[in-house]
Amino acid sequence: MNDIKVGLIGFGNIGAGVVKLLQENADVIRNKVGCGIVLKRIADLDITSDRGVTVDSGCLTTDVNAIFDDPEISVVIELVGGYEPAKSFVLKAIAKGKHIVTANKALLALHGQEIFAAAGRNNVEVQFEASVGGGIPVLSAIKGNMAANNFGSVFGIMNGTCNYILTRMTQEGADFADMLKVAQELGYAEPDPTFDIEGVDTAHKLAILVSLCFGTRIDFKDIYTEGISAISGLDVKFARDFGYRIKLLAIGKLTNDQVEARVHPTMIPLHNPMADVNGVFNAIRLTGDFVGPVMFYGRGAGQNPTASAIVGDLIGLSRSMMAGAGRRMAPLGFLDSEIKTIPVKPMADIVSKYMLRFSALDKPGVLASIAGALGNNAISIESMVQTAHQAGDETPVPIVIMTHEAREGSVQAALAEIDGYGFICQKTSFIRIEDNLE
Amino acid sequence: MNDIKVGLIGFGNIGAGVVKLLQENADVIRNKVGCGIVLKRIADLDITSDRGVTVDSGCLTTDVNAIFDDPEISVVIELVGGYEPAKSFVLKAIAKGKHIVTANKALLALHGQEIFAAAGRNNVEVQFEASVGGGIPVLSAIKGNMAANNFGSVFGIMNGTCNYILTRMTQEGADFADMLKVAQELGYAEPDPTFDIEGVDTAHKLAILVSLCFGTRIDFKDIYTEGISAISGLDVKFARDFGYRIKLLAIGKLTNDQVEARVHPTMIPLHNPMADVNGVFNAIRLTGDFVGPVMFYGRGAGQNPTASAIVGDLIGLSRSMMAGAGRRMAPLGFLDSEIKTIPVKPMADIVSKYMLRFSALDKPGVLASIAGALGNNAISIESMVQTAHQAGDETPVPIVIMTHEAREGSVQAALAEIDGYGFICQKTSFIRIEDNLE
Repeated sequence: MNDIKVGLIGFGNIGAGVVKLLQENADVIRNKVGCGIVLKRIADLDITSDRGVTVDSGCLTTDVNAIFDDPEISVVIELVGGYEPAKSFVLKAIAKGKHIVTANKALLALHGQEIFAAAGRNNVEVQFEASVGGGIPVLSAIKGNMAANNFGSVFGIMNGTCNYILTRMTQEGADFADMLKVAQELGYAEPDPTFDIEGVDTAHKLAILVSLCFGTRIDFKDIYTEGISAISGLDVKFARDFGYRIKLLAIGKLTNDQVEARVHPTMIPLHNPMADVNGVFNAIRLTGDFVGPVMFYGRGAGQNPTASAIVGDLIGLSRSMMAGAGRRMAPLGFLDSEIKTIPVKPMADIVSKYMLRFSALDKPGVLASIAGALGNNAISIESMVQTAHQAGDETPVPIVIMTHEAREGSVQAALAEIDGYGFICQKTSFIRIEDNLE
Repeated sequence: MNDIKVGLIGFGNIGAGVVKLLQENADVIRNKVGCGIVLKRIADLDITSDRGVTVDSGCLTTDVNAIFDDPEISVVIELVGGYEPAKSFVLKAIAKGKHIVTANKALLALHGQEIFAAAGRNNVEVQFEASVGGGIPVLSAIKGNMAANNFGSVFGIMNGTCNYILTRMTQEGADFADMLKVAQELGYAEPDPTFDIEGVDTAHKLAILVSLCFGTRIDFKDIYTEGISAISGLDVKFARDFGYRIKLLAIGKLTNDQVEARVHPTMIPLHNPMADVNGVFNAIRLTGDFVGPVMFYGRGAGQNPTASAIVGDLIGLSRSMMAGAGRRMAPLGFLDSEIKTIPVKPMADIVSKYMLRFSALDKPGVLASIAGALGNNAISIESMVQTAHQAGDETPVPIVIMTHEAREGSVQAALAEIDGYGFICQKTSFIRIEDNLE
């Protein structure tokens, strides 16, 4: 049988991993597909640097058109990253009738609909397992064997940088800035870590998960995104005292024809398996109406796991081609025509439990004022901790309150009121709590 | 587009779940497949009992040939269970050119090769996601997106009855017999629980996982199978004191061209996520050379999760048929011609750490004799606990020894020797330890 010929655009670290995997595991791939999968051309502006892998020099090109114009190439892997020229490359390959495999979460989160529509018109597939959770085969599972379910929720710990920093903060009682520095020294955080620590990377992945689970178009701007840079060692400590661990959690829910899509630091009960997802590991937990809760756990990034997902996509496409199928599945699992636009619930309308941490002067009436403002906004208190002070100590005292479920809008209104009081010494911090991880 | 017509053989609890899922989620299935999936005929000896679902009475038949002989039916779901007549039904459906979906782990573990060979000759698929881990889509992942990997190991907690009993024993310090009774009262254990508690059900599932992961034929008789009925509350307590939890673990490993395939009570470190898999939940953890360790977690049994896996298989087959593909994948992911017969490592040759629990009279020289016998068999001691006795107390004292890694054959030889000593009051118990769950 003839080999499946593939073109690769973007020869960086992940691209080198794909080359390595296709070479080292050529036998097992052939034994499963029935033919070889061969990288015929690799396009990059830099075709001279050493990537630690050996490729036939005739394979490398600086001219991306060598891939688009090669009728033998049936699949194009896009590993350029970012929006442009990645998007133009993908659209051009689609127009030439080539299937797409990509790891580009930013591109899909912002321009997925345009790309998917083009793929539909040209009867090709777009596969992107590597865009979420590295090597964890969660997207295939949602689109594939779990497809009979209506999904109610999806939760994810999906950024290794944030999870590494939060894990170290938890283990060592350290503060954010110190652990960020450690993560940067170890190569777990970029020199400019903004995309990771401010939650943007996680929000890109959530956009993809929400689209797949609920069959909806989501405008990336509608995803509430809050990172971990404001989390203090004190927050981590109080969370633990109340039986929780703080994680940067992506949350997607479908309720009453509204989608919740939000990324923020979240307190997870210690006894939940997601609380034990540490360091650079990722976990995604989702609930279907028939399958119930299912959790996937593994390495969420890195050259080898990401290559595993990309080549896994190649194997799936190759099997379909070998069996005579053209486009076997639309990009989101749902037919393109069945993708809806479900409204996103405004953040003010979400309902959550909260840990509120006030920094107040230790004066008579302080607690009464805080409790009064909460009560006036229909927020009821589940429990409270106030650390004892030495008599005469005039430094602010932390007051920590766990609320019952409350509307976010009410909490914001109450805190705006409370933060105006003279005895409040700094802006009140609050962290949302997810007790029912189902 | 015409609907995909399906025949169902065996209308029990799981069959009713499939009917319910195909009815309740007909919209989402159609929106993902592009046509309906319709149960055209259901065959069972009993077609009058109420299963809690409504089916067109013309759909029901006591004549299984009505399914085989219907050319419109392209997929047959086998939910008869057991070996015969299930095997004959499956082979007959295959001979008629129909794809097979089954949840029958016992059948596949013992007669998989014969069934798969027939499917190959007739160019049909055999899918069986529901046979392992209920609704957890782990088989699809191994065969599908993770297919580029060479797998080194697979571990599973895959029997809800055993895991429920062990979880309760751990939580309450209770003994096996009492918790088995509770499990039976709650319906988590059968009136005759032998298949579950003696590990046979888990071994069936391991046979399937080992075949998929390593691409090998395995003779079911070669799987070492030991259940949980000999585990005592004392074992659970000592395991916890050493930082472990006891689980019935299925273990598959590929090392030096030998396969390990064994099911037995196993001590798992408390900090490992698999130690927190409690009650009726299942988890499967496997390691690929590129993807690294990946864990899947969810409900391992029950009407709804099992129906999710079965209908997931139907959706996959339907998508391939809609795309014009015939047989897209061989049953084990590997081409049939590439399945090897890798020898199974004899149990005496495996290497493990062990917890040994001796029951001995409290006399001078006891420990020296035990330690001597272990040393003579090249077993070194990692740590030891001997509970203090009142002076003059003549009841046996438990001596618990944790070993370093040792050959199973050496441990068996040492224990045979030690159990012959006069001061040993009952057969020594030993539990294998799995420290490196990767």
